[in-house]
Amino acid sequence: VIKGVIFDLDDTLYDTTLQVSLARRNAVKAMIAAGLDATEDEAEEALGKVVSEKGSNYQCHYDEMLSRMGAVPNPKVVAAGIVAYHETKRMHLTPYPDTMPTLLSLRDNGYRLAVVTDGLNVKQWEKLIRLGLSDLFHTVVIAGQDIQPKPSPQPFIAAANQFNLRPEECIVVGDRPDKDIAGAKRAGMASVQLVRGEHAPRKPSGKDEEPDYIIGSLPELKALLKSIR
Amino acid sequence: VIKGVIFDLDDTLYDTTLQVSLARRNAVKAMIAAGLDATEDEAEEALGKVVSEKGSNYQCHYDEMLSRMGAVPNPKVVAAGIVAYHETKRMHLTPYPDTMPTLLSLRDNGYRLAVVTDGLNVKQWEKLIRLGLSDLFHTVVIAGQDIQPKPSPQPFIAAANQFNLRPEECIVVGDRPDKDIAGAKRAGMASVQLVRGEHAPRKPSGKDEEPDYIIGSLPELKALLKSIR
Repeated sequence: VIKGVIFDLDDTLYDTTLQVSLARRNAVKAMIAAGLDATEDEAEEALGKVVSEKGSNYQCHYDEMLSRMGAVPNPKVVAAGIVAYHETKRMHLTPYPDTMPTLLSLRDNGYRLAVVTDGLNVKQWEKLIRLGLSDLFHTVVIAGQDIQPKPSPQPFIAAANQFNLRPEECIVVGDRPDKDIAGAKRAGMASVQLVRGEHAPRKPSGKDEEPDYIIGSLPELKALLKSIR
Repeated sequence: VIKGVIFDLDDTLYDTTLQVSLARRNAVKAMIAAGLDATEDEAEEALGKVVSEKGSNYQCHYDEMLSRMGAVPNPKVVAAGIVAYHETKRMHLTPYPDTMPTLLSLRDNGYRLAVVTDGLNVKQWEKLIRLGLSDLFHTVVIAGQDIQPKPSPQPFIAAANQFNLRPEECIVVGDRPDKDIAGAKRAGMASVQLVRGEHAPRKPSGKDEEPDYIIGSLPELKALLKSIR
C-alpha cells in the first residue's frame, strides 16, 4: 500500500520551461530597447549559449553575453535584461492550477507528501515559498549540495526515512525519466511519469527509466493511488 | 545661469530609508514564521549588525545572521528572509510622488538633468529601471567602480562634461551634506540640500558641507532655479 507521495518540483508542480523561455525573451527585448544592437533571435541565442555553458546559477550571464556578441559593456543594458528576466520569472512562478487542489486532497486522505528537487538549498526554498507551497509538504529534500542529486536514490530514500516509511510504501511523481523515474527505481519505489502535453514529452532512454505509470495531469493521481491500493 | 541639475538618487528621488527599514522588519517576521527562534527586535539587531559590518552588497547576510545568533543553519529560514526582503523592497521601490512631475517640468524648461549616485553600476541601473526613471535623465553617472565616489568632485565633473556645461552652470540636489553638498562644493557647483522632514535631517559637520540652499520638497526647486537666474 502506498502511503507516501514524492513529487519533483520543476515542470511537475509549476511550468519552469514556459517561465524560463518567456523570461529570456523578455530580457532580450528589454536589452534591445535599452540599446543593444541585435535581433531578438541573435540575442536569445547568445544568452542561451552562455546559460548552457556556465549553468543557471552563474552570476554574470548578461555581461558575458554582451562580450560574446562583441558589444560594448553597458550596465544599463545588463540591468534592463536582469530586471525584465526577474520580473517575468516572478510573474510566472505560479503553481499549475491542479497542483494545490491535488496536494490538499492527498493530505486530506492521509498521504505523506514530499518534494525531492535538485538545486541550491536556498534557491529551491525560495521557489517553494514564492509558489506558496512551502508549508504543504511533510518533507522537503533538496539534493545537489549535501545530498547526491537525482537519479541517485539517496534523496528519495532520505524522504522515505523522514516519513518513517519503507521505499515500497512510496511513489515518485515527476516529468523526467532520466532523473525522477530512474531515481525512483534505484530507490525501490514505484514511479509515475507526468506528461502534461504542453511540452514535448521526455522519453525514457532505457529500461531503467521506464515509469510504472503515466498520467496526463495531477488529479489523475488520486484514482491511480486508489487502484494500486 | 544654471543650465544643468544634478540629482542624488537614494533618499532624494525615492525613500530608501523607509524601503530598507520595512524590508528588514518584514524579513525578520518571515524568518520567525519559518522557524527562527528569536524576537523581532533581536533578529533585526543581528541583521543590522551583519549589514553594517559586511556592507549591503554581501551575499550571505542571512546565513551569517543565523550563525551569530547561534541558530542552526536552515535554508528555509534564510529563503523566507530573502523573499520577504526582496518583495518588500520591490513594493517600495517607487519614486517620491513629486519626483516625476518635477523632473518632467525641468526637462520641459530646457534644463539638462543628471543622476550622480554611488554604488555598483548594474545595481544602480536596476534601481533606475525599476523606479521608471532610467530614461528621464540626459546623463547617469554611477560612481564607486570606475569613478571616485562622492564626495569626490569627479562624478559631478563627469556629469557636467557630458552636459557640455561648466561647473558653475550646474547645481547639485541631494540629502547628504557629507556626500552631495561637499562633493558639489569641491566641483565648484552650487548645492541644494533636500530636507524632506520624514527622516531626521542630516546636519553639515563643517563649512565644506554647508549647502547654498535648503528645500523641503522637489517642486520648490523650480522657484529656486528661477530666483538664481
